[in-house]
Amino acid sequence: LFQGALLLFFTFFITYDEPSAQAEDANLVASQLAGIFPLFQDIQVMLVVGLGLLLTFLPRYGLSVLTHNFLLLNFSTQWALVLQGLLHRFHHGRLHLDLRNLLTAEFAAVTVLISVGAVLGRTSPCQLLVVATCEVPVYLASEWAIVTCLGVLDVGGTITIHVFSCYFGLGVSKALFGAARRPVHPKETTTPHSDLLSLVGTLILWVFWPSFVAVLCQPGDAQHRAILNTFLAMSASAVTTVVASSLLERDSKLSPGHLQNGSLAGGVAIGAVADMAVPPVAALALGSLSAVACVLGFKFLTPLLARKLALQDQCGIHNLHGLPGILGGAASAVAILVASEDTSGSRFSQVSPVGGDTNEGAWRWWGDRGAGGQALCQAVGLAVAVGGSLLAGLLTGAALRLPCLARPPERLCFDDSLYFKIQDQAESPGPGGTAEEGALALKERV
Amino acid sequence: LFQGALLLFFTFFITYDEPSAQAEDANLVASQLAGIFPLFQDIQVMLVVGLGLLLTFLPRYGLSVLTHNFLLLNFSTQWALVLQGLLHRFHHGRLHLDLRNLLTAEFAAVTVLISVGAVLGRTSPCQLLVVATCEVPVYLASEWAIVTCLGVLDVGGTITIHVFSCYFGLGVSKALFGAARRPVHPKETTTPHSDLLSLVGTLILWVFWPSFVAVLCQPGDAQHRAILNTFLAMSASAVTTVVASSLLERDSKLSPGHLQNGSLAGGVAIGAVADMAVPPVAALALGSLSAVACVLGFKFLTPLLARKLALQDQCGIHNLHGLPGILGGAASAVAILVASEDTSGSRFSQVSPVGGDTNEGAWRWWGDRGAGGQALCQAVGLAVAVGGSLLAGLLTGAALRLPCLARPPERLCFDDSLYFKIQDQAESPGPGGTAEEGALALKERV
Amino acid sequence: LFQGALLLFFTFFITYDEPSAQAEDANLVASQLAGIFPLFQDIQVMLVVGLGLLLTFLPRYGLSVLTHNFLLLNFSTQWALVLQGLLHRFHHGRLHLDLRNLLTAEFAAVTVLISVGAVLGRTSPCQLLVVATCEVPVYLASEWAIVTCLGVLDVGGTITIHVFSCYFGLGVSKALFGAARRPVHPKETTTPHSDLLSLVGTLILWVFWPSFVAVLCQPGDAQHRAILNTFLAMSASAVTTVVASSLLERDSKLSPGHLQNGSLAGGVAIGAVADMAVPPVAALALGSLSAVACVLGFKFLTPLLARKLALQDQCGIHNLHGLPGILGGAASAVAILVASEDTSGSRFSQVSPVGGDTNEGAWRWWGDRGAGGQALCQAVGLAVAVGGSLLAGLLTGAALRLPCLARPPERLCFDDSLYFKIQDQAESPGPGGTAEEGALALKERV
Repeated sequence: LFQGALLLFFTFFITYDEPSAQAEDANLVASQLAGIFPLFQDIQVMLVVGLGLLLTFLPRYGLSVLTHNFLLLNFSTQWALVLQGLLHRFHHGRLHLDLRNLLTAEFAAVTVLISVGAVLGRTSPCQLLVVATCEVPVYLASEWAIVTCLGVLDVGGTITIHVFSCYFGLGVSKALFGAARRPVHPKETTTPHSDLLSLVGTLILWVFWPSFVAVLCQPGDAQHRAILNTFLAMSASAVTTVVASSLLERDSKLSPGHLQNGSLAGGVAIGAVADMAVPPVAALALGSLSAVACVLGFKFLTPLLARKLALQDQCGIHNLHGLPGILGGAASAVAILVASEDTSGSRFSQVSPVGGDTNEGAWRWWGDRGAGGQALCQAVGLAVAVGGSLLAGLLTGAALRLPCLARPPERLCFDDSLYFKIQDQAESPGPGGTAEEGALALKERV
Repeated sequence: LFQGALLLFFTFFITYDEPSAQAEDANLVASQLAGIFPLFQDIQVMLVVGLGLLLTFLPRYGLSVLTHNFLLLNFSTQWALVLQGLLHRFHHGRLHLDLRNLLTAEFAAVTVLISVGAVLGRTSPCQLLVVATCEVPVYLASEWAIVTCLGVLDVGGTITIHVFSCYFGLGVSKALFGAARRPVHPKETTTPHSDLLSLVGTLILWVFWPSFVAVLCQPGDAQHRAILNTFLAMSASAVTTVVASSLLERDSKLSPGHLQNGSLAGGVAIGAVADMAVPPVAALALGSLSAVACVLGFKFLTPLLARKLALQDQCGIHNLHGLPGILGGAASAVAILVASEDTSGSRFSQVSPVGGDTNEGAWRWWGDRGAGGQALCQAVGLAVAVGGSLLAGLLTGAALRLPCLARPPERLCFDDSLYFKIQDQAESPGPGGTAEEGALALKERV
Repeated sequence: LFQGALLLFFTFFITYDEPSAQAEDANLVASQLAGIFPLFQDIQVMLVVGLGLLLTFLPRYGLSVLTHNFLLLNFSTQWALVLQGLLHRFHHGRLHLDLRNLLTAEFAAVTVLISVGAVLGRTSPCQLLVVATCEVPVYLASEWAIVTCLGVLDVGGTITIHVFSCYFGLGVSKALFGAARRPVHPKETTTPHSDLLSLVGTLILWVFWPSFVAVLCQPGDAQHRAILNTFLAMSASAVTTVVASSLLERDSKLSPGHLQNGSLAGGVAIGAVADMAVPPVAALALGSLSAVACVLGFKFLTPLLARKLALQDQCGIHNLHGLPGILGGAASAVAILVASEDTSGSRFSQVSPVGGDTNEGAWRWWGDRGAGGQALCQAVGLAVAVGGSLLAGLLTGAALRLPCLARPPERLCFDDSLYFKIQDQAESPGPGGTAEEGALALKERV
């Protein structure tokens, strides 16, 4: 892991130089703090605890998965802050750090956390850090193109975060693992206990999802609506998932995997329309539909993709983020069209520009381009997200095959003992195991 | 589970039609959002994560219990929203959905979650959904009778939620299981690990309980007082439970079950007096008393009821919700009498009407009826909650014995494998087991 | 445990008499409630759930550790409230209880929770309660001396809480266990699963740490800065810990213990400078440095201390609280000196007095004494915290050796079955074990 350490220290010292200007106009910020800080904390819980636990469904890989998730989140956030400081506001002098900047940086980190779900367990931390290094700038560029240039309305990140990161992750997986089909690894089997922990992670994500969607909304009306719509969509998802899973499986038993993912599908899909004045029934319907799509994806699409394209998707990110994300993007276009027919847009006068300066343009543009144009924009944005991320993911995955980034050997995949000093191991070390691991570590250092 | 699915889908589509009107006066709501949303999230964590984990004390039933809790919460909330929309505000046109409505609906769902604790592990999801379907309208009626008609002061739901749901659950249990006494099921034994998870659930509930009690208080003074009183009561409960349990058990060892429940008893009891201007010492005393009542209930009352009345109470809801609830209801009557003697009610001028329009009547009534009348009202409200819920619970329990709602066979109670596709099961399926389960599923479909 | 129970009941009844006056001027408090309550809840989660889980790294001692943590928190908070009521405001009449008082009392309880980490697993609950009884008044005195008399700036409690409690705990451990060196207990070995739970505790603490540091800051600018600085420091800690641990260990594997503690070191260190206008890069650097110090401490210092001084430090509190705390204290002195050179203190005009009345003196004093004097004060405060706590800890530890406070026998250390009625134990009780435990309980009662 020597290179990894070097690389890490390096980016570290870059981090230090940059976000050094403090908000001078902090008095303005002060009054907003009470409004945004609880939501910020909710999101932190989601990413650090909720997402971490969700991924612990592999019984012997829990420590690694929590640690990798935690490391990637912090590394990517710092890296995104550096990039934000360097690029975005180059002309304004130094970046004035505040909670809103931090949130934008965390959202960049979220894309990394989602993407690596596709290659979970078969990659080393060094490889994951390389993915983070590549994905964050691509995300920032894509977000700029989709939100600032195209003026896509996407307050909850359905298109910019979920769809983007899903196809990026699939691209990485395809390029990294190639065409070889792998048998099921014996350590991939979940146990009831690991499923339980993972389900707790799902529940934490489920609870705090409204904060994630609503945090960057304009405070007040739009934010209230975003919270309510997200709640309704996720509530519908939860019920529908149980029904759909029990209808699909033999003996009407539930599959824990369906439950862990399907319950969250509504939150992914609602992001693009959350702050629009859609009727509650639409939020419920969208939540149910996306849950059905997610469960069907697990049951039929993932095996199909694995068979036809030899595509590995360890956590099923395509089912949780890809399908519901596309559904949500389409729904946002439909919602815009329907609303404009309804009252010629008068209901949408409540829809507020998102994210301050970046979206003001988008806001005015809609006035110019009309609802049809805006709906088209949503579709184009979706296409840009899918295409761009797939391409960038394939390139990143190819980079991961460089010989200096050793992949863990198949025998030691999904196993904490490769990355952690586990105490009871010291008592009864299989002689072959230790030797092989030593050799691997040696190889990685070279 | 076919009927269950149908039923579910059906209520689903009803759900869709109703809460479709958005708050038009959302600007007013906007400024209150920052005050209520963090509390709302706290309550969500309590119900989804905390209560779910609390119930995982059965080592082989954790997945089912988390899932059933989650499913019931969502189903009941949606069902309560539908009913609210249909009944309560029929004359105002469509229901204007906001966080406050959602909270009222969630409180209806809480009663379901508490009640099913009495029959945990021996009921199928279909039966639980039937319980939810029956209990929510009864709760809404009872809450209307107690709070709106009788003008009972009960900001934390001690009477309307805890006492009601406890006796409803006991009624269901009695009517469902009849007079048969069951031996202890081998899978009922807890393990240290399942006790640990359950204790974590208790701690989560303990932490967020003040939010639960204070969320519907008038913001400001009353809310502050409710938070402090709840904190003090629960803190006293925690210490008293440890002492009481170690005094009762042999070798002064603690019983995990006492700890998991007794620590929360103070929160149940304080609900009815939380926002009144009682001195802190009263909150501490009430918390200690209710913890003692809860621990004694577990040690002596539950075995007694099981022996004399053949009453099953799997989670001990009578000890956690029944006894402390009655204690709290009595305490509220005493507090009102004492306060009126003190300063002829001047301290109570701070007690604020709860829940907007519904309680204004109650408020004025107290002026008319005097403290004695109000104390009487609290007692009558308590009696109504006990009687009404017991009756409705017995009827619901009788309905659960309908042949179309199959109960899980005794051998498969408290076992995840009946409801979940567990992977290692596929490797070594007991031939008899699978056949019997298949037969059961078949029977349920018929 | 008879004395323990008595003692407990006794302090209990004292608690009841005291904080009985309610805030009459609650209207003023009301508007601040929305700002402080979410942070209060965050801190509750940290102490009850996060810290409890962090300590569950001993696989057979999880229930005990959660319970002891919970009991001590509640007991110490109540005890601190009593003392606050008796001592601090004796001349103002009765204590007006509000959330801010409660927080000060909880901070006193935090010192107890940290200190007992040094003697975890080898002490009985009675002994722990004695530690709490002794430490809380010493803490209040030390906090008064350091913050009120010396005017030390320490918004996050780096010196007053972390350094103090660390050396208090080490003193207790030294005086209690004496010079005997103990071999590693067979039940001290962690398992992957207990490490996982402990890591979840770390993550919860990590997420909510900014609330802990910022809660008593002046709302607005200073609070915003404290949140951002804490976040940056902890983010740097997390990444640095992974790197440092993998560089130190054989085969570049991580040690779970390093990760569980090192990630939090930044939060400990940043406390004293969090609300000062330091540049973000300084927060990042401090976080990294303290993480390195913590990991090096675990690797080299703890074994050294155990060998040379026979000092037991079960949880490594010296590495997590001692070293980063001293680093943070030194950093605060440096920051004050640097800032005064920079702009002759103009940047520090933003630094706000902390904690209301107590610090106003300190604030004015700095004006008089200049930056050099203030930096000296920080150093003197650090020395007072180390010296005073070490002395008081040694005395407390000596008191714990009183024969009436039985220590658990070595064979039953780190074992839940000594304190909990565990069900499967009833099925196959080792005859010798039960007898010995009975004898122990008997001895404790005498």
